[in-house]
Amino acid sequence: MKIAVDAMGGDFAPRNIVEGAALALAEYDKLTKLFLVGDTPRIEAELKRVDCHDSRIEIVHATQVVEMGDDAISSVRKKKDSSISVAVDLVKSGDADAIMSAGHTGAAVAASTIKLRLLPGIDRAGIATLFPTETNQFVLIDAGANPDARPLHLLQYAVMGSVYSRYVLGYPNPSVGLLSIGTEDSKGNEFTKEVFTLLKESGLPFRGNVEGHDLFEKPVEVVICEGFVGNVMLKSCEALAHAIFTWLKHELVKNPFRWAGAALAKGAFKTIRDKVSADEAGGSVLLGVDGIVIIAHGSSSARAAKNAIRVGMESVEQQVNPHIVEEMKRFYDLSPAQ
Amino acid sequence: MKIAVDAMGGDFAPRNIVEGAALALAEYDKLTKLFLVGDTPRIEAELKRVDCHDSRIEIVHATQVVEMGDDAISSVRKKKDSSISVAVDLVKSGDADAIMSAGHTGAAVAASTIKLRLLPGIDRAGIATLFPTETNQFVLIDAGANPDARPLHLLQYAVMGSVYSRYVLGYPNPSVGLLSIGTEDSKGNEFTKEVFTLLKESGLPFRGNVEGHDLFEKPVEVVICEGFVGNVMLKSCEALAHAIFTWLKHELVKNPFRWAGAALAKGAFKTIRDKVSADEAGGSVLLGVDGIVIIAHGSSSARAAKNAIRVGMESVEQQVNPHIVEEMKRFYDLSPAQ
Repeated sequence: MKIAVDAMGGDFAPRNIVEGAALALAEYDKLTKLFLVGDTPRIEAELKRVDCHDSRIEIVHATQVVEMGDDAISSVRKKKDSSISVAVDLVKSGDADAIMSAGHTGAAVAASTIKLRLLPGIDRAGIATLFPTETNQFVLIDAGANPDARPLHLLQYAVMGSVYSRYVLGYPNPSVGLLSIGTEDSKGNEFTKEVFTLLKESGLPFRGNVEGHDLFEKPVEVVICEGFVGNVMLKSCEALAHAIFTWLKHELVKNPFRWAGAALAKGAFKTIRDKVSADEAGGSVLLGVDGIVIIAHGSSSARAAKNAIRVGMESVEQQVNPHIVEEMKRFYDLSPAQ
Repeated sequence: MKIAVDAMGGDFAPRNIVEGAALALAEYDKLTKLFLVGDTPRIEAELKRVDCHDSRIEIVHATQVVEMGDDAISSVRKKKDSSISVAVDLVKSGDADAIMSAGHTGAAVAASTIKLRLLPGIDRAGIATLFPTETNQFVLIDAGANPDARPLHLLQYAVMGSVYSRYVLGYPNPSVGLLSIGTEDSKGNEFTKEVFTLLKESGLPFRGNVEGHDLFEKPVEVVICEGFVGNVMLKSCEALAHAIFTWLKHELVKNPFRWAGAALAKGAFKTIRDKVSADEAGGSVLLGVDGIVIIAHGSSSARAAKNAIRVGMESVEQQVNPHIVEEMKRFYDLSPAQ
């Protein structure tokens, strides 16, 4: 399995990304090749720092980096030799099976959309992110690929999310919820009300509006929303989870009884902390493009980068794209809305 | 201090609301009068159930209830004798100092806006919600009053949020962040980019875009966003916090060592659980209307209802509205954008 890694993408790149790549190589035997795309001397320096000399690494030089302040679309046109563009090219040429980037999300989405093209029937790619429930996970799409979505895009996200839920998470009959500000049909803003109508007429197993309390404890299998809302919700939840465990730790060291208690209960903490940890999740799949693209957090740690590479490997095994194509075809053939 | 309570508003009303009112009366001496507005026989039955015979209670009969599926604006016109409308009337007439409702948020906002009117210079009310940081709180506005906001409304929220931060939370020089999907100036959707420009030209202490990781651990004092995003973010965070402690509890009972550890560390858990608990927060202030209106969750427990009444009492003492009026006047006089 061959993964192309955008070694320059992310707030702590290439340091954390290269370190994560080294961790992935040490852990995953199925990785037969890892392309590290970016500035060769800097990548080599980081590999030296972590004492990694794995023969499965191939450094692919790229002279440019898309900066976080760059415009997404024009970055693809203006920085043709950016690490993200070159990494996408490796997938396009068939040299790599998947790409992972923790860089500029918009640029990664734009480069993938322009170079790999969208799947038939799809108008915009969407980031599918997994959220934990007590015993499983649900998928939310879009977590930030498309922050100015049109209602039709969300209908396509519903189809793609359902395919993902069925083939990756193993729910035989996933139902779809629309993220909103109340569960009643009348709740929402102008945008979600339009989406609601489309979904109701779509023939998909639509459960109506869902909100916070439906998400983690009585979840639907697929949650759809436009990218701005999904991204804010994802990052806020991750940040709150991190804050809760940080604050709890500070409280636990306040006296020796608590500290002893924490030591006894350590396993329970670790289980739940890992369940809600952004680092553990690693990265999210960009659905809708004709290729496998994993988007990781800008602030990825080495562990997060390693796990994002793992998500890329899992996605190569899962191969959901043919199922999306098939399902979109069926959807357009059957849907009374079309 | 006299509070009007919409006894019929909420998923578990009048049961939880009346029980919360009884708890508030038992705890808060400063409450001199509590109006319970709604169906008299049902309210009396609930008071009997919780064995509350407090002489500070006055039941005000209302024959109608705004149902959660009702349209917000038309509910004010069509259900003139709803519990929420009658409760707002008590503030308008000066009989009550503040109103608390856990009912239909849109209806509470509409009734307050139509009957109490907006403060000078304000075009839309916004819900100001407090979020915890490790040592203090920050205020987010709007958490759901105005789900189809225009950019100008967010500018007014920034002014109101700053006043709230200064006079209620005690930050001498609060800075404002715009909730977005990246911290760089170029990140966001079309809506937030317009807001960004307005804020940059406003003369307010604008810190730029903020996202998840800025919120709880390196917070700005005032976070602004449009109501749909704020409401989704608030409810998702509350739901996740609840889920984390529920899952942790289930993990902790899995073996006796963990259980013993949990017992020793109980105080630490309680401190952090309370910090992030929706029940403990109780309710949020609706800023921008000429009166004091507290919005509580539809799913309020009795404890949440009690705490929402507490928020109402605190707001009566804080009296931020005159400061908002003054600050809006100064803002319109000074702002180069006007």
